[in-house]
Amino acid sequence: MNSSSRVHNFSAGPCTLPVPVLEAVQNEMLNFENSGMSIIESSHRAPEYDSVHMSALSDFRSLAGVPDDFAILFLQGGASLQFTQIPLNLLSVDEKAGYLNTGTWGGKALSDAKLMCSAYEAWSGADSNFSRMPDASEIEVKEGSRFLHITTNETIGGIQLPKYPKIDFPMVADMSSDFLSRSIDWECFDLVYGGAQKNLGPSGLTIVVVREEIFERSSQVAGGYLDYQIHAKADSMANTPPMFPIYVMGKVLKWMIEAGGLPEFEKRAHERASVLYDTIDNSGGWYQCPVDANSRSLMNIVFRLPNEDLEKKFITEASDFDLVNLKGHRSVGGVRASVYNALPLESAQSLADFMTSFQQQNG
Amino acid sequence: MNSSSRVHNFSAGPCTLPVPVLEAVQNEMLNFENSGMSIIESSHRAPEYDSVHMSALSDFRSLAGVPDDFAILFLQGGASLQFTQIPLNLLSVDEKAGYLNTGTWGGKALSDAKLMCSAYEAWSGADSNFSRMPDASEIEVKEGSRFLHITTNETIGGIQLPKYPKIDFPMVADMSSDFLSRSIDWECFDLVYGGAQKNLGPSGLTIVVVREEIFERSSQVAGGYLDYQIHAKADSMANTPPMFPIYVMGKVLKWMIEAGGLPEFEKRAHERASVLYDTIDNSGGWYQCPVDANSRSLMNIVFRLPNEDLEKKFITEASDFDLVNLKGHRSVGGVRASVYNALPLESAQSLADFMTSFQQQNG
Repeated sequence: MNSSSRVHNFSAGPCTLPVPVLEAVQNEMLNFENSGMSIIESSHRAPEYDSVHMSALSDFRSLAGVPDDFAILFLQGGASLQFTQIPLNLLSVDEKAGYLNTGTWGGKALSDAKLMCSAYEAWSGADSNFSRMPDASEIEVKEGSRFLHITTNETIGGIQLPKYPKIDFPMVADMSSDFLSRSIDWECFDLVYGGAQKNLGPSGLTIVVVREEIFERSSQVAGGYLDYQIHAKADSMANTPPMFPIYVMGKVLKWMIEAGGLPEFEKRAHERASVLYDTIDNSGGWYQCPVDANSRSLMNIVFRLPNEDLEKKFITEASDFDLVNLKGHRSVGGVRASVYNALPLESAQSLADFMTSFQQQNG
Repeated sequence: MNSSSRVHNFSAGPCTLPVPVLEAVQNEMLNFENSGMSIIESSHRAPEYDSVHMSALSDFRSLAGVPDDFAILFLQGGASLQFTQIPLNLLSVDEKAGYLNTGTWGGKALSDAKLMCSAYEAWSGADSNFSRMPDASEIEVKEGSRFLHITTNETIGGIQLPKYPKIDFPMVADMSSDFLSRSIDWECFDLVYGGAQKNLGPSGLTIVVVREEIFERSSQVAGGYLDYQIHAKADSMANTPPMFPIYVMGKVLKWMIEAGGLPEFEKRAHERASVLYDTIDNSGGWYQCPVDANSRSLMNIVFRLPNEDLEKKFITEASDFDLVNLKGHRSVGGVRASVYNALPLESAQSLADFMTSFQQQNG
């Protein structure tokens, strides 16, 4: 197999990974670094895996500029388990927290949190059909709240916080769908988390970066897998970690560091997204992006065509040009192009070219 | 890379996988079934992955003979998260459950459960230094208990329940380290669970098989990732599943079905273990197995040499013959050979030959 048979993959996640990473994984599959076994057959206590694991931790810290007073945890269960685990670890029974209801994921985080604590809606995008993110001035955090939870990018609505809001409360951020696509202002946050399966690697790994200070506060957990502190103390080896996703993410992190780190990936994100938003904006309204101009996501570009029949035709014909996974989420319809870290600019350009020619033929 | 450079891997887990499975994974790494992408780049909602996922579910059901009134869940967080999740889902706040304290894992399940419910010790192996499993007659289940939790095999102590105890209570079983190495008598159980990373695949996947009836009983969860019912209703696709371990396990399950199913693997387990126990028993006491004869594990064969210096020498010299990962767990010392489903009989035979020759040279 070689890369020439590969498609342009606009999946919303899991999604495209760097070809050199996949090739290295392929080469090592039966014999990792002359150990005589695959990395997926290695004991997690063996020196081969230990080195992979500790490098992934330190490369993540260095790439994301994580300060020393934050612990980096490699966990399982996706952002979904964090929706429960965060209130359990950060709140005592009588504390409350505000949540931004910015769409599917912000809303889910809020409703799961309500099962565990006094979570409330600090802003809702429902009035605008979730087509925009709030300004800081619109966010209403109640006195005595422990934190404000934000979702930095909503994959389904295609909206993204252009910058992290400046408020007087510690924030907790679900960055699943724009993790490490731009630098993180750590002083705003008590906790940042995300699934690996968009920008960083395969599914099955959640990265939680948490201010260690919170371990000294009261919480609702006191042991077991759900307790962050148990993982922090053991470098995320308290139990068998999800080794394969950590191993692949380790390679992605090294690929990112070599390419120039977060400033380079922030630049690439703007380039990829601009190619597509420019095509939409220059179509004379034939392609329409339903998102407020200030909230347009650099990761998930959603747009509509004049009618649903044309959208179906667009998606079908695009696949003839190896442009795949463009269907919008079933809850909103339309077209969605997800353009994460590992998607080459050429893929975005190919899609833009196709969009222009499709409009010429059907407009 | 080819298989000729591979070692005999006696790791306690993660551990050896079938070579044909690894080769197939390697071949498909850049282009899965002509999709133009790796399976780890596929959306979990794409037809390619959906077929992998649904086949893994149905092959597990068919191989293990899981009755229709049990749901099969593909979860994350290891057996460790189950230590918490089981009491949350199976018990209301005023119910209690008994636990067999058979060693490291049974003890951990009990101590984590105590944080969530009225869990108590229904038998302890502490008096015998955890060198044996109990007879059914020794187990003390208190009136009104909801279930009895058992650990069918203890990897560290090297003990295994020769058969499932017959008692008048529903049982819950951690089968992590002997999962699908023998048939399961489903009518004894309300829930059976295990990590994939011994007999079935890579780490990062936990299989929970649960009687659906329990969803109608009161529990301590009502939504969120920790609620079994949410996963059962969505065929374990309520959130992004750990796709790579499921994909690899799917191939292992097909390999097992083709080889003859559980009766064949039970036979192989006896053959592999016998080769090693016979060598120990025929050594005139030079090799000693500290485990009660009726509780000897077919998965983890632990033994001692006359002194620790010889044990170190044994482990070092064995690695010169590509016999690796033989060191006993740090908490008990000695030698441990883990001989899971995918370990070829030849590997056990090579180790036995080495043991005989090592005794001749050092005895």
